[in-house]
Amino acid sequence: METSLFWIVPVSSALALLLAWYFYRQMKAESEGTPTMECIALHVRTGAMSYLKQQYKVVTMVFVCLVIFFAIMAYGFNLQNHWVPVAFLTGGFFSGLSGYLGMKTATYASARTANAARNSLNKGLRIAFRSGAVMGLVVVGLGLLDISFWYLLLQYCIPEDVMNPASKLCVITTTMLTFGMGASTQALFARVGGGIYTKAADVGADLVGKVEAGIPEDDPRNPATIADNVGDNVGDVAGMGADLYESYCGSILATSALGAAAFIASGDTEMQFKAVIAPMLIAAVGILLSILGIFAVRTREDASMKDLLKSLSFGTNLSSVLIVFATFLIMWLLGIDNWINLSISVVIGLVVGVIIGRSTEYYTSQSYKPTQKLSESGKTGPATVIISGIGLGMISTTIPVIAVVIGIILSYWFAAGFDFTNISMGLYGIGIAAVGMLSTLGITLATDAYGPIADNAGGNAEMSGLGEEVRKRTDALDSLGNTTAATGKGFAIGSAALTGLSLLASYIEEIRIGLDRIGTAILELPNGIEVAVHEASFTDFMMYYDVTLMNPKVISGMFIGSMMAFLFCGLTMNAVGRAASRMVEEVRRQFREIKGILEGKAEPDYARCVQISTKGAQHEMVFPSLLAIIAPVATGLIFGVPGVIGLLIGGLSSGFVLAIFMANAGGAWDNAKKYVEEGNFGGKGSEVHRATVVGDTVGDPFKDTSGPSLNILVKLMSMVAIVMAGLTVSWSLF
Amino acid sequence: METSLFWIVPVSSALALLLAWYFYRQMKAESEGTPTMECIALHVRTGAMSYLKQQYKVVTMVFVCLVIFFAIMAYGFNLQNHWVPVAFLTGGFFSGLSGYLGMKTATYASARTANAARNSLNKGLRIAFRSGAVMGLVVVGLGLLDISFWYLLLQYCIPEDVMNPASKLCVITTTMLTFGMGASTQALFARVGGGIYTKAADVGADLVGKVEAGIPEDDPRNPATIADNVGDNVGDVAGMGADLYESYCGSILATSALGAAAFIASGDTEMQFKAVIAPMLIAAVGILLSILGIFAVRTREDASMKDLLKSLSFGTNLSSVLIVFATFLIMWLLGIDNWINLSISVVIGLVVGVIIGRSTEYYTSQSYKPTQKLSESGKTGPATVIISGIGLGMISTTIPVIAVVIGIILSYWFAAGFDFTNISMGLYGIGIAAVGMLSTLGITLATDAYGPIADNAGGNAEMSGLGEEVRKRTDALDSLGNTTAATGKGFAIGSAALTGLSLLASYIEEIRIGLDRIGTAILELPNGIEVAVHEASFTDFMMYYDVTLMNPKVISGMFIGSMMAFLFCGLTMNAVGRAASRMVEEVRRQFREIKGILEGKAEPDYARCVQISTKGAQHEMVFPSLLAIIAPVATGLIFGVPGVIGLLIGGLSSGFVLAIFMANAGGAWDNAKKYVEEGNFGGKGSEVHRATVVGDTVGDPFKDTSGPSLNILVKLMSMVAIVMAGLTVSWSLF
Repeated sequence: METSLFWIVPVSSALALLLAWYFYRQMKAESEGTPTMECIALHVRTGAMSYLKQQYKVVTMVFVCLVIFFAIMAYGFNLQNHWVPVAFLTGGFFSGLSGYLGMKTATYASARTANAARNSLNKGLRIAFRSGAVMGLVVVGLGLLDISFWYLLLQYCIPEDVMNPASKLCVITTTMLTFGMGASTQALFARVGGGIYTKAADVGADLVGKVEAGIPEDDPRNPATIADNVGDNVGDVAGMGADLYESYCGSILATSALGAAAFIASGDTEMQFKAVIAPMLIAAVGILLSILGIFAVRTREDASMKDLLKSLSFGTNLSSVLIVFATFLIMWLLGIDNWINLSISVVIGLVVGVIIGRSTEYYTSQSYKPTQKLSESGKTGPATVIISGIGLGMISTTIPVIAVVIGIILSYWFAAGFDFTNISMGLYGIGIAAVGMLSTLGITLATDAYGPIADNAGGNAEMSGLGEEVRKRTDALDSLGNTTAATGKGFAIGSAALTGLSLLASYIEEIRIGLDRIGTAILELPNGIEVAVHEASFTDFMMYYDVTLMNPKVISGMFIGSMMAFLFCGLTMNAVGRAASRMVEEVRRQFREIKGILEGKAEPDYARCVQISTKGAQHEMVFPSLLAIIAPVATGLIFGVPGVIGLLIGGLSSGFVLAIFMANAGGAWDNAKKYVEEGNFGGKGSEVHRATVVGDTVGDPFKDTSGPSLNILVKLMSMVAIVMAGLTVSWSLF
Repeated sequence: METSLFWIVPVSSALALLLAWYFYRQMKAESEGTPTMECIALHVRTGAMSYLKQQYKVVTMVFVCLVIFFAIMAYGFNLQNHWVPVAFLTGGFFSGLSGYLGMKTATYASARTANAARNSLNKGLRIAFRSGAVMGLVVVGLGLLDISFWYLLLQYCIPEDVMNPASKLCVITTTMLTFGMGASTQALFARVGGGIYTKAADVGADLVGKVEAGIPEDDPRNPATIADNVGDNVGDVAGMGADLYESYCGSILATSALGAAAFIASGDTEMQFKAVIAPMLIAAVGILLSILGIFAVRTREDASMKDLLKSLSFGTNLSSVLIVFATFLIMWLLGIDNWINLSISVVIGLVVGVIIGRSTEYYTSQSYKPTQKLSESGKTGPATVIISGIGLGMISTTIPVIAVVIGIILSYWFAAGFDFTNISMGLYGIGIAAVGMLSTLGITLATDAYGPIADNAGGNAEMSGLGEEVRKRTDALDSLGNTTAATGKGFAIGSAALTGLSLLASYIEEIRIGLDRIGTAILELPNGIEVAVHEASFTDFMMYYDVTLMNPKVISGMFIGSMMAFLFCGLTMNAVGRAASRMVEEVRRQFREIKGILEGKAEPDYARCVQISTKGAQHEMVFPSLLAIIAPVATGLIFGVPGVIGLLIGGLSSGFVLAIFMANAGGAWDNAKKYVEEGNFGGKGSEVHRATVVGDTVGDPFKDTSGPSLNILVKLMSMVAIVMAGLTVSWSLF
């Protein structure tokens, strides 16, 4: 019976891909509008595609090097499973493919959305939302397809271990984590590269165009405007796609690995099998519910703004509520031990996600006090805007952290059957809570991805001179997306923390396999007791490696982990600063040297700006990304297992808080500026406006480059540690 | 023989206080200059003293509440030692006294320094430096006096434990930590309150005076200028004095407690006694060497700037080099086990401090690339200055963290005799390395405290219209101080991390005493082994409470700890933002409403600005400071011992990195502005200058309010946890 349930997984992922294809065709059938609109869309599309090509070239080189390295480790030194290099490759490939397909759709959809908005708001919404849904469905479809493919392949290829049949599933699930590492590597490059690209263009366009020359956003006289629109696609669409592909797969894979580990000691392979496929099943049903939710988003032809908002929220809420019931059903059908408590863990995850989402909205939306006060601090100039924004961002970390802490404790406590010493089941509960949060990613990502499409549609409308009314409609669509996207963001942030923890637990599991591989069969614990590696518990490993908080190696690792989060942010912030400076100088140069540019008589050199952003991004993204891969390896070689665990947990706790701080400060600055532009405190062009534009510019790399990359960084470091565990257990300096 | 050595401690602290008194009298004998100078100095002095009075009133109320609470805990529920309330009070009192005396000296010295600078640079240096030395000597003198007083008192009052004589010293040393908690509480209030005061005034004065009205710094036409000068005294002098008193005592007390713990299992009370007094002896000899160093700072009458710098560096370097030899001598005379290795740990601490100091200098001084590039980023406006400064600050955390990690590992490794399982000796090594760093605080604090005196002298010279030449000399003195202060700052930062770790270890020790008090004699470890509480090792406690990195309570504590660091910074940043906004509005109002103010015909209402800063500081400082006291108690009540340990270590690792980031970003912004003012990139009044002034304004609360408070926060949370351990071991929710 359970085997038959598994087939839901590949089937629902195929369904998601088919539906994505259908939506894509449907969107392509619409008209792109006037020749000018077509031409602009083509400009943006070519720019975005050529950037992505360039990006994938660099990433391919990195992947080739890593694959060679893994192959040597696996085949030369037998420190790794032989499947590692291939699994790593497919993870990277599918993650990149998700980004590519999402971006392709987005670049086709923007002009069509603008054109549809000429008729009505409702028509604009439908095209933009369904195009966003393509991205959502592609991510979950490809993710789950890849997972089921590897699961079936490894089931078939890895021989049964007669001595210990329970360990086969452990080997399968930890090998599959390698594919997660491929996805994370690709995602980090996409986020960092795309983030630098888009923010360099954005900052450049804003600082010179809006502040110095005083021309509106997306004005065709601004040389950086095409680069800015290309940036929205490569950063906010392709980057986000790769990012969420990574989160989605990471949470499922880590939880499966924990499920395999939770039942290894009992030797009950049937229950182990159920625990491994449970997260996949929840994700599969989540896809079906997302599709239901997407079709539930429909409005009457003459719908008002309020109707649209209601309809959009209805779709996402429907999926989220139904997944609760579905989880109980799946767990019961599967007949997994302790099914009620595990299902409650999933519900806890969902509630935590909603709380984080609400708190994000409260701190960053101009409908609430904090952001309004931030706008007001512009009365005393840009310096107080920056001080207040940083203060706001730092304070805003409180609710999400408390929510996550409550989520960790309760999901662990329920899953462990109210017994804190039942570590493996407790950790499995944390993992499955993260899977619950991301299970309806199909629809939450749709509401997230449709934002940049509406934004680009606005850009197209402005550049094509479609008039005030159309621009207003696309702006309305954009702000609509911002409101509904809050929940999705809450889920993404919360799941990152929980998945980070699950990966940490998987690392311990991988240590077991690594010890096995180098021939260590018995652990001698410090109190003189001997335990077989096969039967050692989490606590035994902790004792064996002395992973307590008084071990200086653990503490050193933690300091390095905290530092890594800051160093990584600093490097990416500086990269944006440098690339933006070059962009500012170029735009100023063009305004100065190309005569008649500001009167609209001469065309600016768009291509030059696109080139500056591309070069900046490609040049700057490699070092910080490689650092994330090198740090856990180096820490392992110097401080061994305790150092690596310290590094991961230090990076997780600092990185998580730092990421929320940066995301919220950036979001609040953005909306504080918008609040002023809505006519408050003097409105557009006032001193207060100028001050809040400075805040917005500083916030750009916060919220779109450094902040979101941090979540990937933390997970990638864990994955690298897992993949390299074989090396760490065999040698370290101290 | 060892008992006779102990007497060096009270004797050298008395000597320090006597010499401070002598320097103070010497300074008072100098002339304050013209009547205008006297009058301005009086204004500043009265403002500062009345602020401090107000501040101490609020702090006294908080102390009264806490003492009542501790008394109930100690006498009512027997959850604490009976000496706790009194020890707590004296710690707070002496910390406050250090700040008061230092500030009193500084406010008398500034006009005299300005007056002396009318004659020569050298004369100005002598008065400013010796007045700074008063502060340095008062801090170390009072600190060590208080420590020896309590040590002797408790030796006499606490009865010998016949069952376990070794535990008497443990009870003494952990009780003395309560006095450290008093000092930390006072220091946190002083830093936060003083920091808010000074930065609100500074930001207000700069934003309206310098940027909007275009009048120079310290111009008497600026209504906030007196408040600004008062702020330098209450924040940079009184705040810093209380802060370093706390660091100094904290490092000695924590190390003594570790020394007592390290030898408890062996039952060798003589060696235990030696380990307890060793840090006090190093500190005492450090005082003597500091005095030597202070007298070594002397120059010829016609000394050039270069000569002065050389002389100042010679003094500090002399003390630092001699302390190395002295340490070996003390350890040998004391006949402590493993004396060579322990002395090497001290040397390691000193080297780490020097590296951190150099790295701080590299990232924040305008003589090096990073700050120069930061100035250059002003070409593209304030937004890029902020982005680059944040990037620079984040990247600058790398070297200090790596230095501290190497310091932790090596000082542990040497002290533990190259055996990582020898935890208590290893931790003692980390503690003694921190003591080494702070042992020459007498002179390093002198070079640090003389900066604000020179700064104020400059303010006095400007307001009294003493002319360009005198102002130039006071500016030179100020920048001289900045260069030599780098090493002192490195020692302070490095010691904070190491002391934080020592306190964590002391917490475990206090758990033992707490269990003893509630009548738990035997620990049942998870593997079934039973250990007597008296004989349990660090690892046994870790196992008993399951303080591993897979325990969700530990992880929850770590998330909360990281969050606390950010929340605390956010609250203090916002407090500065709010108070500064009010100040800006007030200064603008005065410029608008008081006619003739900008022409120098009407006197501004200085008192009003002083009042705004005072109110802002008093109002805003209470909540964040109380949070630091409540967080560990609440975490303990909810998550028990594992949660508290997680909280402390999460707060330590995130807080340490965050503190370096904020201090360095702030310092770099400050000097980037100065670099522009020196005539680079357009010099004063240019667009680049305006952009860097925004950076400097944002950096003010970074480097003088939030950043330095963080180090105290981390230690205060540990001390609170230690003092409240009795409660935590007796009850927790999970």
